[in-house]
Amino acid sequence: LEADDFVIIEEVLADLEPAEIALLLESLPLNERARLWERVPHDVDGEVLLHVRDEVRTTLINDMEPHEIVAATAGLDTTDLAELFEDLPKQVAEDMLRSMDELQRTRLQETLAFEEDSAGRLMRTDTVSVRADVTLETVQRFLRWKSQVPDNTYLLMVVDRNGVFMGVLPLSRLVSQDPELAVADVMNTDVDSIPVTMHSRELATLFETHDLSTAPVVDEQGLLLGRIVIDDIVDVIREDSDQALMNLAGLDEEEDLFAPVISSAKRRAVWLGINLITAFLAAWVIGRFEDALEKIVALAVLMPIVASMGGIAGSQTLTLAIRGMALGQISRTNSNWLLRKEFGIAIINGILWALVVAVVAYLWFGDSRIGAIIAAALVINIVAAGIAGILIPLLLKRMGIDPALSGSVVLTTVTDVVGFMAFLGLATIFLL
Amino acid sequence: LEADDFVIIEEVLADLEPAEIALLLESLPLNERARLWERVPHDVDGEVLLHVRDEVRTTLINDMEPHEIVAATAGLDTTDLAELFEDLPKQVAEDMLRSMDELQRTRLQETLAFEEDSAGRLMRTDTVSVRADVTLETVQRFLRWKSQVPDNTYLLMVVDRNGVFMGVLPLSRLVSQDPELAVADVMNTDVDSIPVTMHSRELATLFETHDLSTAPVVDEQGLLLGRIVIDDIVDVIREDSDQALMNLAGLDEEEDLFAPVISSAKRRAVWLGINLITAFLAAWVIGRFEDALEKIVALAVLMPIVASMGGIAGSQTLTLAIRGMALGQISRTNSNWLLRKEFGIAIINGILWALVVAVVAYLWFGDSRIGAIIAAALVINIVAAGIAGILIPLLLKRMGIDPALSGSVVLTTVTDVVGFMAFLGLATIFLL
Repeated sequence: LEADDFVIIEEVLADLEPAEIALLLESLPLNERARLWERVPHDVDGEVLLHVRDEVRTTLINDMEPHEIVAATAGLDTTDLAELFEDLPKQVAEDMLRSMDELQRTRLQETLAFEEDSAGRLMRTDTVSVRADVTLETVQRFLRWKSQVPDNTYLLMVVDRNGVFMGVLPLSRLVSQDPELAVADVMNTDVDSIPVTMHSRELATLFETHDLSTAPVVDEQGLLLGRIVIDDIVDVIREDSDQALMNLAGLDEEEDLFAPVISSAKRRAVWLGINLITAFLAAWVIGRFEDALEKIVALAVLMPIVASMGGIAGSQTLTLAIRGMALGQISRTNSNWLLRKEFGIAIINGILWALVVAVVAYLWFGDSRIGAIIAAALVINIVAAGIAGILIPLLLKRMGIDPALSGSVVLTTVTDVVGFMAFLGLATIFLL
Repeated sequence: LEADDFVIIEEVLADLEPAEIALLLESLPLNERARLWERVPHDVDGEVLLHVRDEVRTTLINDMEPHEIVAATAGLDTTDLAELFEDLPKQVAEDMLRSMDELQRTRLQETLAFEEDSAGRLMRTDTVSVRADVTLETVQRFLRWKSQVPDNTYLLMVVDRNGVFMGVLPLSRLVSQDPELAVADVMNTDVDSIPVTMHSRELATLFETHDLSTAPVVDEQGLLLGRIVIDDIVDVIREDSDQALMNLAGLDEEEDLFAPVISSAKRRAVWLGINLITAFLAAWVIGRFEDALEKIVALAVLMPIVASMGGIAGSQTLTLAIRGMALGQISRTNSNWLLRKEFGIAIINGILWALVVAVVAYLWFGDSRIGAIIAAALVINIVAAGIAGILIPLLLKRMGIDPALSGSVVLTTVTDVVGFMAFLGLATIFLL
């Protein structure tokens, strides 16, 4: 980056949405990221911070002076502020609280009191609410008097005199129905209100199944507290799906592609270490059969085939099960049915590929007994993999462990141990 | 299911949203699915068909009489009809076309002419558009005269006298601004219009980065053709993320958890077969070193550790790279940087775990040379895995192959071959 380029860069940045700047920052190595960050127009600093991943956010915040952070966050609403707040250095957070007025501070503290990933954290409080007994005409006059309605207001909330949620009035109805009608005649009461404690994942499902644009958030007494807009739910859905993908590989979903080598290495080392235990366990199983391996070298050559085919078959079942559980398709009542189905698939595919492997092994080593033994071991391992692929996530979930994160290690352990044991064990019995 | 239960079932079904019925059907084995499907109220049949996955849809349609299908789809709009149309048996599709009036038929054929997953297929044509030179008052009168505006209308489209898109008028502004103002004074012109050929994945990114609720679809001349609503984009985002997860395990994203055993087995057999080739390749590599394996049995015991650690390290890098590519974070300009970073991580983690493995191997077999050799092989394989994890998806993408689908097989091939070759090769050189 040359000095001349800076002018161009600033022009480009001025044209981009905060989310696009965020993506650009995420795509840059740390040094260049810091240099670009200095050039981002200060009035969008806060928005950009909101759009980058947690990991990247930390790198950006570290490059800012305390007063810059306070300035960047000044224009944000409470929900967004709460999201940033916990990533701030302690000193800056305190400075920020001091720089706020009483009302802002109280609101922020109220929002922070809700659990992370709850509806309370996600909701916006800029809700426009109206009463059921007024006419549409009156509502319109009220809105014109207000004159500022957020662009992502798709419907108005209808509440009673105590502020208890009654229903919603889509703007599309407000503008198309007879202005003499009362809100009560036009509003939609067939709307689920969201308890403030609902988890964001549940919320996402609700928005998807009901094709919602906005949902009302209420407290235990039914009092309207705020609204959740689909714009924010889209982020939840993306993060959620991301998490499943990353966790299957033992990664943190917030992993920054351009984090410094040391911190990435540290994070991934843990997963490698856990898998090393599995690998040693498999090696130990193999070590039990040194006798057989010493006498028949073909066993050493063929044994990885048994373990690997089991691993592949098992991970297919595991992925389906994890996704099915996330979508709510798997419950106690149908898990037996699924188990039988996966058993059936494993028998069919086990026998099919066992025959192929048996023939190749026979042609290779000219020993039909080795062919028969590897075939038997392959069927056993693929069946074990199919059953494990269903049972492991179910058990992990019952134990309160995320199956997406730890399912694959446990599964590999099972398919390695069963695979080596079946193949080398059968060989020891029948060939020695 | 007893006869008595049917009454209860019908009551429950009547209370559910089509999307919820769809999920219920997806969670049932085929027999029970067919029985429940008969009980679904016929007026939501069409909606339910829209919400289930393609795979499940086929099982449901197969259970229906042609006239039932025609009836179920009668109430659907053209976009939804087009989505179903291609899954229908040919005879039914023809019956349906005949039962439609001229206008419906033309519209359906126009929609079908757009490519699958393009904006043209996703867009709805029930757009409400207004002219820029009228007042908000006039717009309101027009809407009241229309009296029917779809509930998911969040903004009106503004067009010129030729129907060319000019901007949008959010309903929130229509209801809150002075009715004497002209549409032109209030509308938002800073809106990207969507070419009708845009791919749904690109659309999803656009909705996410710009926090859109509705986007205008235009033809090459800028003529307004329809609108895309965020409700439909949410489905695109979910399917897209699903696909990455399923493809990594060699599964089709439409895979029905409860498909019959035979069809599931067939589908998964292919993936197992492809992986078998990889496994045989690895076995062949091991076979090159029979000499070493015959003389030193410890090699057979330890060699899976080298291959497995490489596989784990590589799949972490691969997952990050695939996600980074999907998010648009990886380009030609930063791929070198990434490669160097992954090389650095691999060196650090390779050396760390190589030391651990070397010590354990030495203690286990009492031979420091074996410890040194496995350590060296482990470093080589983990480094190869890190580099392959970046290069493989980049190469596959350049070849036009989806890296999520085939990346993991290619990677496993690399880590198995390099792992066995490095370990057994070094052993042959230094121990024999």
